[in-house]
Amino acid sequence: MSDLPVSFADIQAAAVRIAPYVHRTPVLESRRLNEILGGRVAFKCENQQRIGAFKARGAHNAVFSLSDAEAAKGVVTHSSGNHAAALALAASNRGVAAHIVMPRNAPKAKVESVRRLGGQIVFCEPTIAARESACEAIMAETGAVLVHPYDDALVIAGQGTAALELLEERPELDFILAPVGGGGLMSGTSIAARAIKPSIRIVATEPAQANDAWRSWTAKAWTAGDAPNTIADGLRTTLGQRGFVILNALLDDFVTVSEDGIRDAMRLVWEVLKIVIEPSSAVPVAALLERKLDLQGAAAGVILTGGNVDLDRLPWQA
Amino acid sequence: MSDLPVSFADIQAAAVRIAPYVHRTPVLESRRLNEILGGRVAFKCENQQRIGAFKARGAHNAVFSLSDAEAAKGVVTHSSGNHAAALALAASNRGVAAHIVMPRNAPKAKVESVRRLGGQIVFCEPTIAARESACEAIMAETGAVLVHPYDDALVIAGQGTAALELLEERPELDFILAPVGGGGLMSGTSIAARAIKPSIRIVATEPAQANDAWRSWTAKAWTAGDAPNTIADGLRTTLGQRGFVILNALLDDFVTVSEDGIRDAMRLVWEVLKIVIEPSSAVPVAALLERKLDLQGAAAGVILTGGNVDLDRLPWQA
Repeated sequence: MSDLPVSFADIQAAAVRIAPYVHRTPVLESRRLNEILGGRVAFKCENQQRIGAFKARGAHNAVFSLSDAEAAKGVVTHSSGNHAAALALAASNRGVAAHIVMPRNAPKAKVESVRRLGGQIVFCEPTIAARESACEAIMAETGAVLVHPYDDALVIAGQGTAALELLEERPELDFILAPVGGGGLMSGTSIAARAIKPSIRIVATEPAQANDAWRSWTAKAWTAGDAPNTIADGLRTTLGQRGFVILNALLDDFVTVSEDGIRDAMRLVWEVLKIVIEPSSAVPVAALLERKLDLQGAAAGVILTGGNVDLDRLPWQA
Repeated sequence: MSDLPVSFADIQAAAVRIAPYVHRTPVLESRRLNEILGGRVAFKCENQQRIGAFKARGAHNAVFSLSDAEAAKGVVTHSSGNHAAALALAASNRGVAAHIVMPRNAPKAKVESVRRLGGQIVFCEPTIAARESACEAIMAETGAVLVHPYDDALVIAGQGTAALELLEERPELDFILAPVGGGGLMSGTSIAARAIKPSIRIVATEPAQANDAWRSWTAKAWTAGDAPNTIADGLRTTLGQRGFVILNALLDDFVTVSEDGIRDAMRLVWEVLKIVIEPSSAVPVAALLERKLDLQGAAAGVILTGGNVDLDRLPWQA
């Protein structure tokens, strides 16, 4: 693991660095879900993390790793999702500016959320070229540091702290599962889990309709994502380069799941655990529900990534 | 308090009796909700209790208080709600029969839930007379003991264990709030809270559209309920006689809330705490949201009663 872009020591340092600003989230287990899923399953509830998603971890690690001089110039990112809110909160906690580039058509709720957390929103046209040039203009003008949502060693180290906490509480786990979008969470999870428990089975999960990371891992060659169409909106991004290297080195298995499976798993978690999770969180649960991975009574840990969902319209409502 | 039908010692005994069978539920707090609600608010999450509601506490206390000879004949109740599931689980844990009288038109999901927990369902016509005579027939035939959903000293003592746990964790609370349906939870909460912290303000809450308990408390005379129409389906019952006596003696305040307030409070809790609560749980939150009770920065505890809700149609969806 010494040739990987992030080490376990980086994750341990991140845990200390971010502790004052993020929650140690609860771990839930349910007899009924154990029966349905075929083994003991512990759920790490990052839906109850600050800003409602694990992204608070990576953003705080990145922002609090900056020198005072660097931080004073602010930070910048382009995102309309959980990373935008996470970076706004982290910058606010450090007392510096967060410039968030968002497409003009971003959902109003997400815009309001970033604004409430003190983020300075810069709207751009909804194209990749437009948001990248908007970011570059801000960096040139202010000297702000770019914090990439996933292809960043400090962000990956921060995301790994969720698995670190889970394995501290549940050292008996035989499997650990998380979803893959850009690969930041899965990379951090893999590094932490392999270091803490070398025998653990590390399993990545992805929607079959957004399987670029699975294709990259299977081919052992990075594959560009096409425009994926999945209800797991957090996983529509393409695997980052650092994530590709880390997942290649550390994953034991990688399974994909159907949209129906994601929907059923999401509803099952709401019904039984009585918690609000977003579709991305349900992807590893779907892998167990669809028996893409047979636990055979073993103990698995699942990282529930977030709970930011449109309550006006749920995926199982036609 | 010595003339009340339930003592604090009864609640302490209940806590020991039911501990092997129920969860010690989490207590949540959120900075954002504190800002919105005007004080520090601790939420006791009985939505994450077994069967998804506090009713598991009272049912287990009643069933495990029976002698072996009494228990062997089984237990019976009429309910199509959370008490039915709670009694089925408690009887199953004791290894005895639970006869659950339900109207023929009970929602299929509730019937399935009771059946999955091992309850023996007896259908009857959807009238009070029919369900009472069905209960009496079962008692005459089997010798089963009736466990009333709320007008029962052992049930009240069991429900009081939620407040006991909350005040153990949060001794600093200045207020404690819960909703009133039949009065079992509010009675147990009042007895526990007054005994543990004599200075605490005990506040009952009820939907304005189902305000029979409020009318009874205000008039200091028990008032029959009319047929209430509220989205808080768990609170459509009429205050029991024991509850009337206890609430008269111990409440500091009693406030009622609007249907819109319940809906807004329910959605707010889902959005911010990322947990699934049923409309009844949102009633005390609505009291704070609508400033029916002004915390002025003080610390309040709210018992979130349950999380069993129809996920196909949420109250804020037209």
